[in-house]
Amino acid sequence: MKYNYARRMADMKASEIRELLKLTEKPEVISFAGGLPAPELFPIEEIKQANDYVLDHHGCQALQYSTTEGYRPLRKWIAQRMNTQLGTSFDVDDIMITNGSQQALDLSGKLFLDEGDVVLCESPTYLAAISAFKAYGCRFVEVATDGEGMIMSELEHALKTEPDAKLVYVIPNFQNPTGRTWSLKRRQNNPYGELRYEGSFLPSIKSFDCTGNIICTGTFSKILCPGLRIGWIAGEAEVIRKYVLVKQGVDLQCSTIAQMVISAYLEQYDIDAHIRKIREVYRKRRDVALDAVNRYFSSDIKYTKPEGGLFLWIELNDAVDTVALLEKCLEYNVAFVPGNSFYPNRNKPNTLRINFSNMPEDRIEEGIARIGQVLDV
Amino acid sequence: MKYNYARRMADMKASEIRELLKLTEKPEVISFAGGLPAPELFPIEEIKQANDYVLDHHGCQALQYSTTEGYRPLRKWIAQRMNTQLGTSFDVDDIMITNGSQQALDLSGKLFLDEGDVVLCESPTYLAAISAFKAYGCRFVEVATDGEGMIMSELEHALKTEPDAKLVYVIPNFQNPTGRTWSLKRRQNNPYGELRYEGSFLPSIKSFDCTGNIICTGTFSKILCPGLRIGWIAGEAEVIRKYVLVKQGVDLQCSTIAQMVISAYLEQYDIDAHIRKIREVYRKRRDVALDAVNRYFSSDIKYTKPEGGLFLWIELNDAVDTVALLEKCLEYNVAFVPGNSFYPNRNKPNTLRINFSNMPEDRIEEGIARIGQVLDV
Repeated sequence: MKYNYARRMADMKASEIRELLKLTEKPEVISFAGGLPAPELFPIEEIKQANDYVLDHHGCQALQYSTTEGYRPLRKWIAQRMNTQLGTSFDVDDIMITNGSQQALDLSGKLFLDEGDVVLCESPTYLAAISAFKAYGCRFVEVATDGEGMIMSELEHALKTEPDAKLVYVIPNFQNPTGRTWSLKRRQNNPYGELRYEGSFLPSIKSFDCTGNIICTGTFSKILCPGLRIGWIAGEAEVIRKYVLVKQGVDLQCSTIAQMVISAYLEQYDIDAHIRKIREVYRKRRDVALDAVNRYFSSDIKYTKPEGGLFLWIELNDAVDTVALLEKCLEYNVAFVPGNSFYPNRNKPNTLRINFSNMPEDRIEEGIARIGQVLDV
Repeated sequence: MKYNYARRMADMKASEIRELLKLTEKPEVISFAGGLPAPELFPIEEIKQANDYVLDHHGCQALQYSTTEGYRPLRKWIAQRMNTQLGTSFDVDDIMITNGSQQALDLSGKLFLDEGDVVLCESPTYLAAISAFKAYGCRFVEVATDGEGMIMSELEHALKTEPDAKLVYVIPNFQNPTGRTWSLKRRQNNPYGELRYEGSFLPSIKSFDCTGNIICTGTFSKILCPGLRIGWIAGEAEVIRKYVLVKQGVDLQCSTIAQMVISAYLEQYDIDAHIRKIREVYRKRRDVALDAVNRYFSSDIKYTKPEGGLFLWIELNDAVDTVALLEKCLEYNVAFVPGNSFYPNRNKPNTLRINFSNMPEDRIEEGIARIGQVLDV
């Protein structure tokens, strides 16, 4: 071997599925594989105005180095927003800005995980969280879920068999990949939390936290746009100070101008009106997707009916391997993500994830019809 | 302890010096402590125009997710630029975009370093590289330097005593902290490489690489602005593919819009003219700083006379501890970074680093006069 990599690299391989999904870049492919927001809804003009405003009035500051913690007015807005919407009681010092919420996951791994440490997670769970934590050599213990989220008796059981577990990682709102939402009893906070299409907002699990041990991540990727790469981590100021130390060594800070542009946008425009617009469009797309699954798939499948977020989760009959199905589907120019990747340990080869936020309604219907067709062959 | 952190956190402490340097935020303090470029030279109007252009013509793309590798036209520009200026032969696939060059250091640690691995480095070396690599539990072996960079016989000796050393980390151009430049015999490439005030450009050590084992980092922070957080890593395509895997788990990608804005700027404006402007200003500031050190410091000191970059490095007589000196200097409203922090292992308490890029000439002279005054007390 020419390069002498660290041991952690042995597990880090280019995924076959990622290779398969490269084929979805052709315009004739209807791809449900991504997790992309709808770009036609990006507030391009408003962001341009915010950019101009920041560069006209604070150009030197916006293009200069700034603090690792992040731009203070933005952190303040985030704390207040979470407190109002989710019942938390965060202060500005409880918030650090990250490169999207993905960086919050990586920094959490770096801050908490030694080799061999145990992470408890929902089964299935977010693919990129598996990658982020795995790089620190942890072991995953999956906790069974149902329609209301992680099953509490299963969590208690896992905590008993793994008393030294370092992290419990959960996505309580419109989970990726399943689209499921934790019931009021099983609450915390997540990236899709504001994209609710029906039902009422639920308080964050953090609002019930009496230990101070709950840390929340958040992002502007789904409610504004992902291209600016601005997310955050929220927790007690004591632990946030440690995150700051870790981030200093990792990349010094997030983009100064990106933080100031978002902050200017939030001051000058009505993000709630913008979110309402997104919700309306995605709700219709979800309805079309659900309707199409109902119409074009045989009746021996199970699927989630998400109240928000970007994804449907489908469980086909036990005989189907969705990796093979994807290969066949690609011949019919339609794609999705096979569900197995979302289980850190065990095989669940008959599952798949459908993203419905990134294309018009007629394409959604057409694409799901094609998958149904392939399944019937 | 309330939070059960990873072992690596035991070494990661908020530095006392960082706490001291917080005092330099008062406007009456003349601070030579930072490594900040001069904000009055940022091409604010041009970056605003580039921003507007990108959002007007490619808004949806600029605000959407994009690839981990980075924006292809920008990677292509970087490869060509390095090849032309530094004698390398990089292709677009040999380049990955990072959040400033700091992230390139962190990703290198993650890719190569297991606990206990040895990193060879210049003595002294870049402070934030020490933090980045240390987080992966490595051990540093310092290699002695002279006015021409790392002493090759010392490097050979270190490689013999540490045959399993994983990385040799060097900054061959206008080094941070010393400002020194490797002679032609001892070459590679670095963030300050384009900020040369005199002498001629030297080829990158990469251009002499016959093993493929040399990896270079670069950044737009010093030649354009740091606020956009765009840097890069360059190496053989094989190793860059591994960096891509690591970055996927870490933060998915760099800001799409920031990459496209820099790319538009490079297409529409003359960055070489811009760099010439920076060079001219910094060269004068360096001259003022050198002149002032010569005038206001006693003759028993040693200092570097950098041909480029942002820093002077001063070695006082052995009796002086520059941390105590900094405390005294703060009373006189002047600051610098004590040199000890730049030595991963051994104490060299009589050294200090002076940044000369971030303030007008009269403030430089006044600040150095104040330090001289404190030294004379």
